[in-house]
Amino acid sequence: MLALTILGNNSAIPAWDRNPTAHILQSFEECYLIDCGEGTQIQMSKYKIRRSKINHIFISHLHGDHYFGLIGLLTSMSLLSRMQDLHLHAPAALEQIINLQLNVADVKLSYQLYFHPITENGIIVNDNKITVESFKVKHRIECWGFLFREKKNPRKINSVRVKLYEIPTSYYEQLQKGEDYVTKKGTIIPNKEVTIEGVKPKSYAYCADTIYDESLVEKIKSVDLLYHEATYLAALHQRAAERFHSTTVQAAAIAKKGNVKKLLIGHFSSKYEILDEFLTEASKVFENTELALQGVSYRI
Amino acid sequence: MLALTILGNNSAIPAWDRNPTAHILQSFEECYLIDCGEGTQIQMSKYKIRRSKINHIFISHLHGDHYFGLIGLLTSMSLLSRMQDLHLHAPAALEQIINLQLNVADVKLSYQLYFHPITENGIIVNDNKITVESFKVKHRIECWGFLFREKKNPRKINSVRVKLYEIPTSYYEQLQKGEDYVTKKGTIIPNKEVTIEGVKPKSYAYCADTIYDESLVEKIKSVDLLYHEATYLAALHQRAAERFHSTTVQAAAIAKKGNVKKLLIGHFSSKYEILDEFLTEASKVFENTELALQGVSYRI
Repeated sequence: MLALTILGNNSAIPAWDRNPTAHILQSFEECYLIDCGEGTQIQMSKYKIRRSKINHIFISHLHGDHYFGLIGLLTSMSLLSRMQDLHLHAPAALEQIINLQLNVADVKLSYQLYFHPITENGIIVNDNKITVESFKVKHRIECWGFLFREKKNPRKINSVRVKLYEIPTSYYEQLQKGEDYVTKKGTIIPNKEVTIEGVKPKSYAYCADTIYDESLVEKIKSVDLLYHEATYLAALHQRAAERFHSTTVQAAAIAKKGNVKKLLIGHFSSKYEILDEFLTEASKVFENTELALQGVSYRI
Repeated sequence: MLALTILGNNSAIPAWDRNPTAHILQSFEECYLIDCGEGTQIQMSKYKIRRSKINHIFISHLHGDHYFGLIGLLTSMSLLSRMQDLHLHAPAALEQIINLQLNVADVKLSYQLYFHPITENGIIVNDNKITVESFKVKHRIECWGFLFREKKNPRKINSVRVKLYEIPTSYYEQLQKGEDYVTKKGTIIPNKEVTIEGVKPKSYAYCADTIYDESLVEKIKSVDLLYHEATYLAALHQRAAERFHSTTVQAAAIAKKGNVKKLLIGHFSSKYEILDEFLTEASKVFENTELALQGVSYRI
Protein backbone atom coordinates (compact mmCIF):
# COMPACT_ATOMS: atom_id res chain seq x y z
CA MET A 1 0.00 0.00 0.00
CA LEU A 2 1.59 3.23 -1.18
CA ALA A 3 0.53 6.85 -0.83
CA LEU A 4 2.19 9.92 -2.28
CA THR A 5 2.06 13.34 -0.60
CA ILE A 6 3.10 16.43 -2.52
CA LEU A 7 5.07 19.00 -0.49
CA GLY A 8 6.01 21.24 -3.41
CA ASN A 9 4.80 21.42 -7.01
CA ASN A 10 6.46 24.50 -8.49
CA SER A 11 9.50 24.83 -10.69
CA ALA A 12 12.56 27.04 -10.22
CA ILE A 13 11.21 30.00 -8.21
CA PRO A 14 8.65 29.64 -5.38
CA ALA A 15 5.51 31.52 -6.42
CA TRP A 16 1.72 31.62 -5.92
CA ASP A 17 2.12 29.83 -2.59
CA ARG A 18 3.67 26.93 -4.45
CA ASN A 19 6.92 25.50 -3.12
CA PRO A 20 9.72 23.82 -5.06
CA THR A 21 9.68 20.05 -5.58
CA ALA A 22 9.45 17.52 -2.75
CA HIS A 23 7.43 14.29 -2.60
CA ILE A 24 6.81 11.91 0.29
CA LEU A 25 6.09 8.31 -0.68
CA GLN A 26 4.61 6.41 2.23
CA SER A 27 4.72 2.63 2.43
CA PHE A 28 3.16 1.44 5.68
CA GLU A 29 5.28 2.99 8.47
CA GLU A 30 8.13 4.16 6.23
CA CYS A 31 8.40 7.47 4.39
CA TYR A 32 10.67 7.98 1.40
CA LEU A 33 11.56 11.59 0.63
CA ILE A 34 12.01 12.33 -3.08
CA ASP A 35 13.72 15.65 -3.80
CA CYS A 36 13.90 18.37 -1.20
CA GLY A 37 13.47 21.96 -2.42
CA GLU A 38 13.85 24.95 -0.10
CA GLY A 39 11.25 24.94 2.66
CA THR A 40 10.64 21.17 2.60
CA GLN A 41 11.11 20.81 6.36
CA ILE A 42 8.55 23.57 6.92
CA GLN A 43 6.12 21.81 4.55
CA MET A 44 6.72 18.56 6.44
CA SER A 45 5.65 20.19 9.70
CA LYS A 46 2.62 21.72 8.00
CA TYR A 47 1.45 18.39 6.60
CA LYS A 48 2.38 16.35 9.68
CA ILE A 49 5.12 14.25 8.10
CA ARG A 50 7.39 13.03 10.88
CA ARG A 51 11.11 13.34 10.20
CA SER A 52 11.75 10.14 12.12
CA LYS A 53 9.79 8.10 9.56
CA ILE A 54 12.33 8.95 6.87
CA ASN A 55 15.29 6.64 6.42
CA HIS A 56 15.96 7.16 2.72
CA ILE A 57 16.19 10.41 0.77
CA PHE A 58 16.47 10.52 -3.02
CA ILE A 59 17.75 13.60 -4.87
CA SER A 60 17.19 13.55 -8.63
CA HIS A 61 19.60 16.31 -9.64
CA LEU A 62 21.46 19.34 -8.36
CA HIS A 63 19.31 22.20 -9.55
CA GLY A 64 18.48 24.17 -6.44
CA ASP A 65 14.70 23.77 -6.62
CA HIS A 66 15.25 20.03 -6.01
CA TYR A 67 17.73 20.11 -3.11
CA PHE A 68 18.25 23.50 -1.42
CA GLY A 69 16.07 22.35 1.49
CA LEU A 70 18.15 19.26 2.18
CA ILE A 71 20.92 20.73 4.34
CA GLY A 72 18.33 22.38 6.59
CA LEU A 73 16.48 19.11 7.04
CA LEU A 74 19.69 17.15 7.75
CA THR A 75 20.84 19.63 10.39
CA SER A 76 17.39 19.87 11.98
CA MET A 77 17.33 16.08 12.34
CA SER A 78 20.64 16.36 14.17
CA LEU A 79 19.45 19.22 16.39
CA LEU A 80 16.55 16.95 17.34
CA SER A 81 19.11 14.28 18.34
CA ARG A 82 18.20 11.73 15.69
CA MET A 83 19.99 8.44 16.32
CA GLN A 84 18.85 6.20 13.47
CA ASP A 85 20.86 5.92 10.25
CA LEU A 86 19.91 7.98 7.23
CA HIS A 87 20.60 6.99 3.63
CA LEU A 88 21.03 9.65 0.98
CA HIS A 89 20.94 8.68 -2.70
CA ALA A 90 22.05 11.51 -4.97
CA PRO A 91 24.47 12.67 -7.64
CA ALA A 92 28.03 12.39 -6.33
CA ALA A 93 28.78 16.12 -6.10
CA LEU A 94 26.22 16.62 -3.34
CA GLU A 95 28.45 14.97 -0.75
CA GLN A 96 31.07 17.71 -0.95
CA ILE A 97 28.43 20.44 -0.68
CA ILE A 98 26.96 18.91 2.47
CA ASN A 99 30.33 18.26 4.09
CA LEU A 100 31.50 21.78 3.38
CA GLN A 101 28.38 23.25 5.00
CA LEU A 102 28.70 21.02 8.05
CA ASN A 103 32.39 21.86 8.38
CA VAL A 104 32.03 25.64 8.32
CA ALA A 105 29.33 25.40 11.00
CA ASP A 106 31.52 23.06 13.06
CA VAL A 107 28.62 20.57 13.13
CA LYS A 108 28.91 16.82 13.58
CA LEU A 109 25.61 15.11 12.86
CA SER A 110 24.08 13.17 15.75
CA TYR A 111 23.38 10.23 13.41
CA GLN A 112 25.15 8.29 10.72
CA LEU A 113 24.55 9.70 7.25
CA TYR A 114 25.32 7.21 4.49
CA PHE A 115 25.91 8.86 1.17
CA HIS A 116 25.16 6.66 -1.86
CA PRO A 117 26.21 8.34 -5.10
CA ILE A 118 24.01 7.37 -8.04
CA THR A 119 26.18 6.32 -10.94
CA GLU A 120 24.10 4.10 -13.21
CA ASN A 121 20.66 2.67 -13.91
CA GLY A 122 19.77 -0.09 -11.47
CA ILE A 123 18.47 -1.11 -8.06
CA ILE A 124 19.63 1.30 -5.34
CA VAL A 125 17.42 0.14 -2.46
CA ASN A 126 16.24 -3.39 -1.86
CA ASP A 127 14.76 -4.07 1.55
CA ASN A 128 12.04 -6.42 2.71
CA LYS A 129 9.24 -4.09 1.63
CA ILE A 130 10.34 -2.28 -1.49
CA THR A 131 12.84 -1.95 -4.31
CA VAL A 132 13.94 1.40 -5.70
CA GLU A 133 15.51 1.62 -9.11
CA SER A 134 17.29 4.64 -10.55
CA PHE A 135 17.05 5.48 -14.24
CA LYS A 136 18.71 8.31 -16.09
CA VAL A 137 16.51 11.02 -17.59
CA LYS A 138 17.46 13.73 -20.10
CA HIS A 139 17.85 17.14 -18.50
CA ARG A 140 20.32 20.04 -18.66
CA ILE A 141 22.53 18.38 -16.07
CA GLU A 142 22.87 14.81 -14.75
CA CYS A 143 19.40 13.80 -13.57
CA TRP A 144 17.78 10.61 -12.28
CA GLY A 145 14.28 9.21 -12.11
CA PHE A 146 13.24 6.68 -9.48
CA LEU A 147 11.00 3.65 -9.75
CA PHE A 148 9.50 2.31 -6.51
CA ARG A 149 8.06 -1.20 -6.49
CA GLU A 150 6.46 -2.73 -3.45
CA LYS A 151 7.25 -6.30 -2.69
CA LYS A 152 4.49 -8.78 -2.00
CA ASN A 153 2.24 -7.39 0.73
CA PRO A 154 1.44 -9.47 3.82
CA ARG A 155 -1.64 -11.76 3.59
CA LYS A 156 -4.67 -10.58 5.55
CA ILE A 157 -5.97 -12.51 8.54
CA ASN A 158 -9.50 -13.89 8.13
CA SER A 159 -10.70 -12.96 11.59
CA VAL A 160 -13.64 -15.38 11.63
CA ARG A 161 -11.60 -18.39 10.53
CA VAL A 162 -8.65 -17.84 12.90
CA LYS A 163 -11.11 -17.81 15.83
CA LEU A 164 -12.74 -20.99 14.52
CA TYR A 165 -9.38 -22.77 14.59
CA GLU A 166 -8.42 -21.09 17.89
CA ILE A 167 -5.13 -19.80 16.47
CA PRO A 168 -3.30 -17.64 19.04
CA THR A 169 -2.67 -14.01 18.04
CA SER A 170 1.07 -14.52 18.59
CA TYR A 171 1.00 -16.66 15.43
CA TYR A 172 -0.67 -14.06 13.18
CA GLU A 173 2.59 -12.61 11.87
CA GLN A 174 3.62 -16.01 10.54
CA LEU A 175 0.19 -16.45 8.95
CA GLN A 176 0.58 -13.09 7.23
CA LYS A 177 3.84 -14.35 5.78
CA GLY A 178 1.95 -17.33 4.29
CA GLU A 179 2.93 -20.07 6.73
CA ASP A 180 0.53 -22.91 7.62
CA TYR A 181 -0.59 -23.40 11.23
CA VAL A 182 0.02 -26.63 13.09
CA THR A 183 -2.32 -27.35 16.01
CA LYS A 184 -1.17 -28.90 19.30
CA LYS A 185 -2.54 -32.21 18.06
CA GLY A 186 -0.41 -31.94 14.93
CA THR A 187 -3.16 -31.06 12.49
CA ILE A 188 -2.03 -28.80 9.67
CA ILE A 189 -4.33 -25.84 8.91
CA PRO A 190 -3.37 -24.63 5.41
CA ASN A 191 -2.61 -20.92 5.30
CA LYS A 192 -5.28 -20.26 2.67
CA GLU A 193 -7.95 -21.55 5.07
CA VAL A 194 -7.35 -18.68 7.51
CA THR A 195 -5.97 -15.81 5.42
CA ILE A 196 -6.85 -13.94 2.26
CA GLU A 197 -4.65 -12.43 -0.41
CA GLY A 198 -2.82 -9.24 0.68
CA VAL A 199 -3.15 -5.94 -1.16
CA LYS A 200 -1.61 -6.12 -4.63
CA PRO A 201 1.91 -4.63 -4.62
CA LYS A 202 1.96 -1.14 -6.14
CA SER A 203 4.49 0.87 -8.10
CA TYR A 204 5.36 4.55 -8.45
CA ALA A 205 7.61 6.15 -11.06
CA TYR A 206 9.09 9.62 -10.54
CA CYS A 207 10.56 11.10 -13.70
CA ALA A 208 12.09 14.24 -12.13
CA ASP A 209 12.88 17.01 -14.64
CA THR A 210 13.02 15.78 -18.21
CA ILE A 211 12.67 16.76 -21.80
CA TYR A 212 10.04 14.80 -23.78
CA ASP A 213 11.78 11.45 -24.20
CA GLU A 214 10.05 8.35 -25.51
CA SER A 215 12.78 6.10 -24.21
CA LEU A 216 11.20 6.72 -20.78
CA VAL A 217 8.17 4.66 -21.80
CA GLU A 218 10.02 1.39 -21.32
CA LYS A 219 11.09 2.43 -17.80
CA ILE A 220 7.69 3.41 -16.48
CA LYS A 221 5.60 0.79 -18.30
CA SER A 222 2.34 -0.12 -16.52
CA VAL A 223 3.16 1.54 -13.19
CA ASP A 224 0.24 2.33 -10.90
CA LEU A 225 1.20 5.98 -10.63
CA LEU A 226 3.47 7.97 -12.89
CA TYR A 227 4.68 11.43 -11.88
CA HIS A 228 5.84 13.28 -14.97
CA GLU A 229 6.77 16.94 -14.92
CA ALA A 230 4.71 19.38 -16.99
CA THR A 231 6.48 22.69 -16.59
CA TYR A 232 4.61 24.35 -19.47
CA LEU A 233 1.31 24.29 -21.28
CA ALA A 234 1.36 22.76 -24.77
CA ALA A 235 1.78 26.06 -26.60
CA LEU A 236 5.26 26.50 -25.12
CA HIS A 237 6.64 23.19 -26.39
CA GLN A 238 9.58 24.96 -28.01
CA ARG A 239 10.61 26.67 -24.78
CA ALA A 240 10.13 23.35 -22.97
CA ALA A 241 12.53 21.63 -25.35
CA GLU A 242 15.12 24.42 -25.09
CA ARG A 243 15.12 24.12 -21.32
CA PHE A 244 14.93 20.32 -21.22
CA HIS A 245 11.44 20.37 -19.72
CA SER A 246 8.09 18.94 -20.86
CA THR A 247 4.58 20.16 -21.57
CA THR A 248 1.20 18.83 -20.42
CA VAL A 249 0.51 16.86 -23.60
CA GLN A 250 4.03 15.44 -23.65
CA ALA A 251 3.67 14.16 -20.08
CA ALA A 252 0.29 12.67 -21.00
CA ALA A 253 1.73 11.06 -24.15
CA ILE A 254 4.36 9.24 -22.07
CA ALA A 255 1.64 8.06 -19.67
CA LYS A 256 -0.48 6.80 -22.56
CA LYS A 257 2.35 5.02 -24.35
CA GLY A 258 3.45 3.52 -21.03
CA ASN A 259 -0.08 2.31 -20.32
CA VAL A 260 0.17 3.52 -16.71
CA LYS A 261 -2.83 3.44 -14.37
CA LYS A 262 -2.70 7.10 -13.42
CA LEU A 263 -0.68 10.22 -14.21
CA LEU A 264 0.25 13.05 -11.86
CA ILE A 265 1.68 16.23 -13.37
CA GLY A 266 3.59 18.96 -11.54
CA HIS A 267 6.68 21.23 -11.53
CA PHE A 268 4.57 24.08 -12.86
CA SER A 269 6.32 27.16 -14.18
CA SER A 270 5.98 30.29 -12.02
CA LYS A 271 4.54 32.11 -15.03
CA TYR A 272 1.20 30.34 -14.43
CA GLU A 273 -0.93 31.40 -11.50
CA ILE A 274 -3.99 29.31 -12.44
CA LEU A 275 -3.46 25.62 -13.18
CA ASP A 276 -6.83 24.48 -14.64
CA GLU A 277 -5.54 24.46 -18.19
CA PHE A 278 -2.79 21.99 -17.24
CA LEU A 279 -5.40 19.43 -16.31
CA THR A 280 -7.59 20.15 -19.33
CA GLU A 281 -4.75 19.74 -21.80
CA ALA A 282 -3.25 16.60 -20.28
CA SER A 283 -6.61 14.88 -19.72
CA LYS A 284 -7.44 15.12 -23.40
CA VAL A 285 -4.45 12.88 -24.15
CA PHE A 286 -4.56 10.70 -21.03
CA GLU A 287 -7.82 10.75 -19.13
CA ASN A 288 -6.75 9.56 -15.71
CA THR A 289 -4.57 12.57 -14.97
CA GLU A 290 -4.45 14.67 -11.80
CA LEU A 291 -2.59 17.82 -10.83
CA ALA A 292 0.07 17.41 -8.15
CA LEU A 293 -1.36 19.70 -5.45
CA GLN A 294 0.48 20.62 -2.28
CA GLY A 295 -0.63 18.86 0.86
CA VAL A 296 -2.74 16.34 -1.05
CA SER A 297 -2.06 12.63 -0.54
CA TYR A 298 -2.66 10.41 -3.55
CA ARG A 299 -3.42 6.83 -2.63
CA ILE A 300 -1.73 4.47 -5.06
CA MET B 1 14.36 57.26 8.04
CA LEU B 2 14.83 53.58 8.77
CA ALA B 3 12.35 50.73 9.18
CA LEU B 4 13.07 47.15 10.13
CA THR B 5 10.92 44.23 8.93
CA ILE B 6 11.30 40.83 10.56
CA LEU B 7 11.10 37.87 8.15
CA GLY B 8 12.13 35.20 10.65
CA ASN B 9 12.48 35.21 14.44
CA ASN B 10 13.18 31.62 15.42
CA SER B 11 16.45 29.90 16.25
CA ALA B 12 17.89 26.70 14.80
CA ILE B 13 14.79 24.71 13.76
CA PRO B 14 11.72 26.29 12.14
CA ALA B 15 8.78 25.77 14.53
CA TRP B 16 5.39 27.25 15.55
CA ASP B 17 5.14 28.99 12.18
CA ARG B 18 8.31 30.85 13.03
CA ASN B 19 11.05 30.97 10.40
CA PRO B 20 14.81 31.21 10.92
CA THR B 21 16.51 34.61 11.08
CA ALA B 22 16.19 37.26 8.37
CA HIS B 23 15.77 41.03 8.75
CA ILE B 24 15.07 43.69 6.14
CA LEU B 25 16.31 47.18 6.98
CA GLN B 26 14.71 49.77 4.74
CA SER B 27 16.23 53.18 4.18
CA PHE B 28 14.12 55.16 1.73
CA GLU B 29 14.17 53.16 -1.52
CA GLU B 30 16.95 50.75 -0.51
CA CYS B 31 16.56 47.47 1.37
CA TYR B 32 19.40 45.82 3.25
CA LEU B 33 18.99 42.10 3.93
CA ILE B 34 20.54 40.94 7.19
CA ASP B 35 20.90 37.16 7.46
CA CYS B 36 18.93 34.82 5.26
CA GLY B 37 17.61 31.63 6.87
CA GLU B 38 15.81 28.94 4.87
CA GLY B 39 12.57 30.24 3.35
CA THR B 40 13.61 33.92 3.32
CA GLN B 41 12.66 34.38 -0.34
CA ILE B 42 9.21 32.95 0.41
CA GLN B 43 8.84 35.32 3.37
CA MET B 44 9.90 38.21 1.15
CA SER B 45 7.06 37.42 -1.28
CA LYS B 46 4.63 37.11 1.60
CA TYR B 47 5.54 40.49 3.05
CA LYS B 48 5.91 42.25 -0.32
CA ILE B 49 9.64 42.93 -0.14
CA ARG B 50 10.90 43.37 -3.69
CA ARG B 51 14.13 41.55 -4.50
CA SER B 52 15.19 44.36 -6.80
CA LYS B 53 15.41 46.78 -3.85
CA ILE B 54 18.24 44.75 -2.32
CA ASN B 55 21.78 45.64 -3.29
CA HIS B 56 23.59 44.57 -0.13
CA ILE B 57 23.24 41.34 1.86
CA PHE B 58 24.93 40.79 5.23
CA ILE B 59 25.47 37.31 6.67
CA SER B 60 26.52 37.27 10.33
CA HIS B 61 27.80 33.68 10.55
CA LEU B 62 27.61 30.29 8.91
CA HIS B 63 25.15 28.46 11.11
CA GLY B 64 22.43 27.26 8.76
CA ASP B 65 19.55 29.13 10.37
CA HIS B 66 21.28 32.35 9.29
CA TYR B 67 22.15 31.57 5.66
CA PHE B 68 20.54 28.39 4.20
CA GLY B 69 18.04 30.56 2.30
CA LEU B 70 20.74 32.61 0.58
CA ILE B 71 21.58 30.34 -2.36
CA GLY B 72 17.89 30.08 -3.26
CA LEU B 73 17.50 33.84 -3.22
CA LEU B 74 20.65 34.39 -5.30
CA THR B 75 19.57 31.89 -7.96
CA SER B 76 15.99 33.21 -8.04
CA MET B 77 17.34 36.72 -8.67
CA SER B 78 19.23 35.29 -11.62
CA LEU B 79 16.21 33.36 -12.94
CA LEU B 80 14.37 36.68 -12.86
CA SER B 81 17.15 38.16 -15.03
CA ARG B 82 18.48 40.62 -12.46
CA MET B 83 21.03 42.96 -14.05
CA GLN B 84 22.11 45.22 -11.19
CA ASP B 85 25.17 44.38 -9.06
CA LEU B 86 24.73 42.62 -5.73
CA HIS B 87 27.12 42.93 -2.80
CA LEU B 88 27.45 40.10 -0.32
CA HIS B 89 29.22 40.72 3.00
CA ALA B 90 29.90 37.49 4.89
CA PRO B 91 32.50 35.22 6.48
CA ALA B 92 35.02 34.17 3.84
CA ALA B 93 34.04 30.47 3.68
CA LEU B 94 30.65 31.29 2.20
CA GLU B 95 32.13 32.14 -1.18
CA GLN B 96 33.28 28.57 -1.79
CA ILE B 97 29.88 27.16 -0.78
CA ILE B 98 28.05 29.42 -3.21
CA ASN B 99 30.45 28.81 -6.07
CA LEU B 100 30.28 25.06 -5.57
CA GLN B 101 26.48 25.11 -5.69
CA LEU B 102 26.43 27.28 -8.82
CA ASN B 103 29.01 25.06 -10.50
CA VAL B 104 27.23 21.74 -9.97
CA ALA B 105 24.04 23.29 -11.38
CA ASP B 106 25.97 24.72 -14.33
CA VAL B 107 24.54 28.16 -13.47
CA LYS B 108 26.10 31.49 -14.33
CA LEU B 109 24.35 34.32 -12.51
CA SER B 110 22.73 36.95 -14.72
CA TYR B 111 24.24 39.71 -12.57
CA GLN B 112 27.57 40.56 -10.97
CA LEU B 113 27.88 39.19 -7.43
CA TYR B 114 30.59 40.91 -5.44
CA PHE B 115 31.73 38.89 -2.48
CA HIS B 116 33.19 40.93 0.38
CA PRO B 117 34.68 38.68 3.08
CA ILE B 118 34.40 40.21 6.55
CA THR B 119 37.76 40.04 8.27
CA GLU B 120 37.83 42.70 10.97
CA ASN B 121 35.84 45.34 12.84
CA GLY B 122 35.26 48.42 10.72
CA ILE B 123 33.25 50.17 8.01
CA ILE B 124 32.17 47.75 5.28
CA VAL B 125 29.66 49.94 3.41
CA ASN B 126 29.86 53.68 3.01
CA ASP B 127 27.57 55.19 0.41
CA ASN B 128 25.80 58.51 0.22
CA LYS B 129 22.99 57.42 2.52
CA ILE B 130 24.41 55.07 5.10
CA THR B 131 27.44 53.52 6.72
CA VAL B 132 27.57 49.92 7.86
CA GLU B 133 30.11 48.77 10.38
CA SER B 134 30.95 45.18 11.26
CA PHE B 135 31.86 44.21 14.80
CA LYS B 136 32.84 40.79 16.09
CA VAL B 137 30.51 39.08 18.58
CA LYS B 138 31.20 36.03 20.73
CA HIS B 139 29.51 32.89 19.41
CA ARG B 140 30.47 29.24 18.84
CA ILE B 141 31.94 30.08 15.46
CA GLU B 142 33.13 33.31 13.81
CA CYS B 143 30.20 35.73 14.01
CA TRP B 144 29.64 39.39 13.18
CA GLY B 145 27.24 42.08 14.28
CA PHE B 146 26.34 45.04 12.07
CA LEU B 147 25.82 48.68 12.93
CA PHE B 148 23.84 50.78 10.44
CA ARG B 149 24.07 54.57 10.68
CA GLU B 150 22.15 56.86 8.39
CA LYS B 151 23.94 59.87 7.06
CA LYS B 152 22.37 63.29 7.31
CA ASN B 153 18.88 63.13 5.85
CA PRO B 154 17.84 65.60 3.11
CA ARG B 155 16.30 68.88 4.32
CA LYS B 156 12.55 69.20 3.82
CA ILE B 157 11.09 71.69 1.37
CA ASN B 158 8.88 74.35 3.00
CA SER B 159 6.14 74.28 0.37
CA VAL B 160 4.69 77.69 1.26
CA ARG B 161 8.02 79.52 1.17
CA VAL B 162 9.29 78.00 -2.08
CA LYS B 163 6.10 79.22 -3.79
CA LEU B 164 6.54 82.67 -2.30
CA TYR B 165 10.02 82.91 -3.84
CA GLU B 166 8.84 81.24 -7.06
CA ILE B 167 11.59 78.64 -6.93
CA PRO B 168 11.23 76.11 -9.78
CA THR B 169 10.67 72.46 -8.74
CA SER B 170 13.75 71.46 -10.74
CA TYR B 171 15.80 73.19 -8.04
CA TYR B 172 14.25 71.33 -5.08
CA GLU B 173 16.89 68.59 -5.02
CA GLN B 174 19.64 71.16 -4.52
CA LEU B 175 17.59 72.83 -1.79
CA GLN B 176 17.26 69.47 -0.03
CA LYS B 177 21.04 69.20 -0.09
CA GLY B 178 21.26 72.56 1.72
CA GLU B 179 22.19 74.83 -1.16
CA ASP B 180 21.01 78.44 -1.33
CA TYR B 181 18.87 79.65 -4.24
CA VAL B 182 19.92 82.50 -6.50
CA THR B 183 17.12 84.32 -8.32
CA LYS B 184 17.40 85.54 -11.93
CA LYS B 185 18.10 89.00 -10.59
CA GLY B 186 20.99 87.64 -8.55
CA THR B 187 19.33 87.77 -5.15
CA ILE B 188 20.47 85.02 -2.80
CA ILE B 189 17.68 83.22 -0.92
CA PRO B 190 19.36 81.44 2.04
CA ASN B 191 18.52 77.75 2.21
CA LYS B 192 17.11 78.05 5.73
CA GLU B 193 14.48 80.50 4.44
CA VAL B 194 12.84 77.85 2.27
CA THR B 195 13.65 74.46 3.92
CA ILE B 196 13.40 72.90 7.33
CA GLU B 197 15.67 70.41 9.09
CA GLY B 198 15.47 66.85 7.70
CA VAL B 199 14.60 63.84 9.81
CA LYS B 200 17.31 63.09 12.36
CA PRO B 201 19.62 60.32 11.09
CA LYS B 202 18.85 57.00 12.75
CA SER B 203 20.92 53.98 13.74
CA TYR B 204 20.29 50.24 14.04
CA ALA B 205 22.54 47.66 15.69
CA TYR B 206 22.16 43.94 14.92
CA CYS B 207 24.02 41.72 17.38
CA ALA B 208 23.42 38.38 15.60
CA ASP B 209 23.95 35.33 17.84
CA THR B 210 25.96 36.09 20.94
CA ILE B 211 26.71 35.04 24.46
CA TYR B 212 26.10 37.71 27.13
CA ASP B 213 29.04 40.02 26.53
CA GLU B 214 29.37 43.44 28.14
CA SER B 215 32.01 44.49 25.67
CA LEU B 216 29.11 44.88 23.20
CA VAL B 217 27.84 47.88 25.17
CA GLU B 218 30.48 50.16 23.71
CA LYS B 219 29.58 49.08 20.16
CA ILE B 220 25.85 49.66 20.36
CA LYS B 221 25.90 52.74 22.61
CA SER B 222 22.86 55.03 22.19
CA VAL B 223 21.55 53.47 18.97
CA ASP B 224 17.92 54.11 18.09
CA LEU B 225 17.15 50.43 17.79
CA LEU B 226 19.12 47.49 19.15
CA TYR B 227 18.32 43.95 18.06
CA HIS B 228 19.75 41.53 20.59
CA GLU B 229 19.03 37.82 20.51
CA ALA B 230 17.16 36.26 23.43
CA THR B 231 17.13 32.56 22.65
CA TYR B 232 16.05 31.57 26.17
CA LEU B 233 14.07 32.78 29.13
CA ALA B 234 16.11 33.86 32.15
CA ALA B 235 15.84 30.53 33.96
CA LEU B 236 17.95 28.85 31.27
CA HIS B 237 20.94 31.21 31.60
CA GLN B 238 23.28 28.28 32.07
CA ARG B 239 22.17 26.57 28.86
CA ALA B 240 22.40 29.94 27.10
CA ALA B 241 26.02 30.34 28.19
CA GLU B 242 26.93 26.78 27.18
CA ARG B 243 25.56 27.37 23.69
CA PHE B 244 26.91 30.93 23.34
CA HIS B 245 23.41 32.40 23.37
CA SER B 246 21.67 34.96 25.61
CA THR B 247 18.55 35.21 27.73
CA THR B 248 15.84 37.88 27.91
CA VAL B 249 17.33 39.69 30.90
CA GLN B 250 20.82 39.55 29.45
CA ALA B 251 19.62 41.16 26.20
CA ALA B 252 17.79 43.80 28.24
CA ALA B 253 20.87 44.43 30.41
CA ILE B 254 22.95 45.21 27.32
CA ALA B 255 20.23 47.58 26.08
CA LYS B 256 20.14 49.35 29.45
CA LYS B 257 23.89 49.68 29.82
CA GLY B 258 24.09 50.88 26.20
CA ASN B 259 21.38 53.47 26.85
CA VAL B 260 19.68 52.58 23.56
CA LYS B 261 16.30 54.03 22.59
CA LYS B 262 14.56 50.73 21.97
CA LEU B 263 15.30 47.01 22.19
CA LEU B 264 13.99 44.26 19.92
CA ILE B 265 14.48 40.65 21.02
CA GLY B 266 14.26 37.55 18.83
CA HIS B 267 15.90 34.23 17.82
CA PHE B 268 13.53 32.38 20.13
CA SER B 269 14.26 28.75 20.92
CA SER B 270 11.86 26.22 19.36
CA LYS B 271 11.14 24.90 22.84
CA TYR B 272 8.84 27.90 23.46
CA GLU B 273 5.50 28.04 21.69
CA ILE B 274 4.19 31.10 23.56
CA LEU B 275 6.41 34.17 23.72
CA ASP B 276 4.65 36.44 26.27
CA GLU B 277 7.13 35.64 29.00
CA PHE B 278 10.01 36.87 26.84
CA LEU B 279 8.51 40.34 26.78
CA THR B 280 7.62 40.31 30.48
CA GLU B 281 11.11 39.33 31.59
CA ALA B 282 12.99 41.71 29.31
CA SER B 283 10.70 44.70 29.97
CA LYS B 284 11.38 44.49 33.70
CA VAL B 285 15.03 45.26 33.01
CA PHE B 286 14.58 47.55 30.01
CA GLU B 287 11.14 48.99 29.56
CA ASN B 288 11.13 49.93 25.88
CA THR B 289 11.44 46.36 24.63
CA GLU B 290 9.44 44.69 21.87
CA LEU B 291 9.32 41.14 20.53
CA ALA B 292 10.62 40.67 16.98
CA LEU B 293 7.46 39.39 15.29
CA GLN B 294 7.35 38.08 11.74
CA GLY B 295 5.90 40.41 9.15
CA VAL B 296 5.93 43.38 11.51
CA SER B 297 7.79 46.54 10.45
CA TYR B 298 9.37 48.54 13.24
CA ARG B 299 9.81 52.21 12.38
CA ILE B 300 13.11 53.47 13.74
